[in-house]
Amino acid sequence: MTDGLIKDLAAGIPKDAIVTDVDLLQSYRNDMATFCPAGTPKVAVFPRQTEHVQHVLRTASKHHVPVVPQGGRTGLSGAANAIDGCIVLGMDRMNRIKEIDTANRIAVVEPGVLNYELSQKVLEHGLFYPPDPSSWDISTIGGNVATNAGGLCCVKYGVTADFVRGLEVILASGEMLKTGRRTAKGVAGYDLSKIFVGSEGTLGVVTEVTLALLPQPSEPRTVAALFPSVRQAGDAVARIIANGHQPSLLEFMDQASLRAANAYKNFGLPETAAAMLVAQSDAAPEQAKADIAGYARIFEDAGGFDVAEAEDKEEGDLLLAARRESHFALERIGTGRLIDDVCVPRTELAAFVERVEAIATDVDLLIAVVGHAGDGNLHPNVVFEASDPAQTERAKQAFADIMAVGLELGGTVTGEHGVGMLKREWLAREIGETSLRVHRELKKVFDPQGILNPGKVFTL
Amino acid sequence: MTDGLIKDLAAGIPKDAIVTDVDLLQSYRNDMATFCPAGTPKVAVFPRQTEHVQHVLRTASKHHVPVVPQGGRTGLSGAANAIDGCIVLGMDRMNRIKEIDTANRIAVVEPGVLNYELSQKVLEHGLFYPPDPSSWDISTIGGNVATNAGGLCCVKYGVTADFVRGLEVILASGEMLKTGRRTAKGVAGYDLSKIFVGSEGTLGVVTEVTLALLPQPSEPRTVAALFPSVRQAGDAVARIIANGHQPSLLEFMDQASLRAANAYKNFGLPETAAAMLVAQSDAAPEQAKADIAGYARIFEDAGGFDVAEAEDKEEGDLLLAARRESHFALERIGTGRLIDDVCVPRTELAAFVERVEAIATDVDLLIAVVGHAGDGNLHPNVVFEASDPAQTERAKQAFADIMAVGLELGGTVTGEHGVGMLKREWLAREIGETSLRVHRELKKVFDPQGILNPGKVFTL
Repeated sequence: MTDGLIKDLAAGIPKDAIVTDVDLLQSYRNDMATFCPAGTPKVAVFPRQTEHVQHVLRTASKHHVPVVPQGGRTGLSGAANAIDGCIVLGMDRMNRIKEIDTANRIAVVEPGVLNYELSQKVLEHGLFYPPDPSSWDISTIGGNVATNAGGLCCVKYGVTADFVRGLEVILASGEMLKTGRRTAKGVAGYDLSKIFVGSEGTLGVVTEVTLALLPQPSEPRTVAALFPSVRQAGDAVARIIANGHQPSLLEFMDQASLRAANAYKNFGLPETAAAMLVAQSDAAPEQAKADIAGYARIFEDAGGFDVAEAEDKEEGDLLLAARRESHFALERIGTGRLIDDVCVPRTELAAFVERVEAIATDVDLLIAVVGHAGDGNLHPNVVFEASDPAQTERAKQAFADIMAVGLELGGTVTGEHGVGMLKREWLAREIGETSLRVHRELKKVFDPQGILNPGKVFTL
Repeated sequence: MTDGLIKDLAAGIPKDAIVTDVDLLQSYRNDMATFCPAGTPKVAVFPRQTEHVQHVLRTASKHHVPVVPQGGRTGLSGAANAIDGCIVLGMDRMNRIKEIDTANRIAVVEPGVLNYELSQKVLEHGLFYPPDPSSWDISTIGGNVATNAGGLCCVKYGVTADFVRGLEVILASGEMLKTGRRTAKGVAGYDLSKIFVGSEGTLGVVTEVTLALLPQPSEPRTVAALFPSVRQAGDAVARIIANGHQPSLLEFMDQASLRAANAYKNFGLPETAAAMLVAQSDAAPEQAKADIAGYARIFEDAGGFDVAEAEDKEEGDLLLAARRESHFALERIGTGRLIDDVCVPRTELAAFVERVEAIATDVDLLIAVVGHAGDGNLHPNVVFEASDPAQTERAKQAFADIMAVGLELGGTVTGEHGVGMLKREWLAREIGETSLRVHRELKKVFDPQGILNPGKVFTL
């Protein structure tokens, strides 16, 4: 504790906000990514107010020490992994919902608020905060902003960025930058908010978020169908979009994930089906009924079978349960898992899944595909035995091959999980040299010393 | 024509794309703003393809000559005004709609495409491009991107930025930067697209835009009502939002603009009314009917009178006509006009209009207010005799006072018209020193010599 850095930190933040215990520090090394190196922090600090964050960043700047901001550490790309000797900046204690303004439909929150908590709170006011990553009960709004989190809602409602009106951000220097505004519209100056959304902690530390809210939609109605081939499921998705529908949810599971779901919680899904689609409409009740009937017709026309319309919310939840729990179902079938996150034009859904199937055959591993069919955002899960080095190597190969296919089909290597450390080399492949140079120069504007989460997204 | 700059330009673009005639150049000096200085360009160039734009910017960089990009020159803030000795870069000949992909609901267009043309074209495919600035029949998509144009649609559908998926941008160096993607989602790297949207030609020249489209909504239904006081109209707006409604249009006119409308085209609006509201719903027919009935009830509860529900589209157009034509109606009642563009939290609508009324009394001028009530984005029109220097001075004072009130009420000085030259000092007041410094440094990343539309938005 005689270390200059720790002493300087302690001069501006309460003692109980500073963790230097080596054992405790171990628990702040990782997010939930596989195969990403994680160092050991020198110290972890847990600010309770903006001024603490400013003090931490001023101190880090003075000592040239890297700072790794963390939310719920639910990320899947290693963006929140610690760096040896860094300051871990845990934002979860800044967790106040400061304001819910129903008349202007905005919420002002600190970054440590859980997505779930905010969503429930605004519901009490008849309002709706759409972004719903699978991790919503354990991930924070700050983390959601840092990764531009998506979820099942995106096909109709968009991603986190679409709801960020304004930010309070602390730059590497400790300076406070206010971006955006509370109003519905505004074009005064550059859109600085959106530079920070999805920047994975490399440009600044968000200490306050002003979010747009929507009126609460109707209870969604649900329909699900099974398909004899992925091609037919992909066709059904394309037809739904081409027919001008706007489902509030349109999810996909392939045969391997259906089987995993059955193994996990006997859902009784026919394991001969090549794919399942689940669609919802949250339009006003009469319209939703018509929508669901329309989706059902399209499912049948495209060759779907066991088309099941839910009678009520419980039945709808049941139809969606296998998809919602697929993350856990797939976790159980191997000791290792790499979750990919490619987003392709939605018309390429079937082509993409077929290519993934070919890769699975090639590497002789199970690859289960679930995802947000309506967005073309798919999550191939490469399952392997972590204790088997050969399998592990093949899994990594498959993971890379999947991204290559995504790019080949006009897609992106990451639809919602972010780049972190896991996809750093792939970012360069996707965006090219000019864009990468611009990224580096933008970072310099906000973080000239390069202390903010260095080595994440791209190398300096 | 022996000038080195012109010679170098001619080496890479066709002769008929270069205008040096002094008389002709006069017509490229201004956009539609009042009181903004405009210089005389040395040359105007009209590229037909991306390579031409690259050549122009390389040449400008070599000669250190400022470049002023122009679209339809319909802007209201002087952002497209020429600078003495500059190259005017007229983008209107790059006007191809390259692709409309119905299955993925995207359009790829060159910047010179008119908003109206694109909107009509996508309608033929059953699709919808919402942004609808009043200038839509003469403004270009490139200009819309540069100013992040809004319109009447915004209350439900958002602004241009919400529809930009990706851009091809030429930087000051002539380098091509591709931003964003075609897919519905994507988080690979920083969101570079949004930095350019609304940057008013100061960061790069957009040569291609990938836009998201929506399915075509139903024919909107319309209801209008008059109000004995602005306060009651404001109350009605607040109640509509608080009741969870999502009108597709919610427009406001004050007494002065109602009178101007009558004077322009005898609309027969009761001139004793303090305000009018017009609302639309474009939900599915049954829902729209219910919505409109709900708005009507709220209008009545808030003290509105002459509440009129349109029977069909023509009647709806009629109800909206006075608002749609208010720009032209107001143009006729004075020889000078300054159009403000403040956006306040929508609950502050009445307070704002009342403060504007007080300013009008103070400066002894007519100020007519129309605007997008549902967004809180209002356009006070300060009317004056341009030949009267004292009136002109008072008009400028009123224009500034209105912005000050906007900021005081938690709003922004510009909701959709942009900063340009007109509101440059006000930008600094709104965003503060740290943000302004960040703006300057961001510009340096994309335009290190400062040749791109210098002096617009902020001074270097």
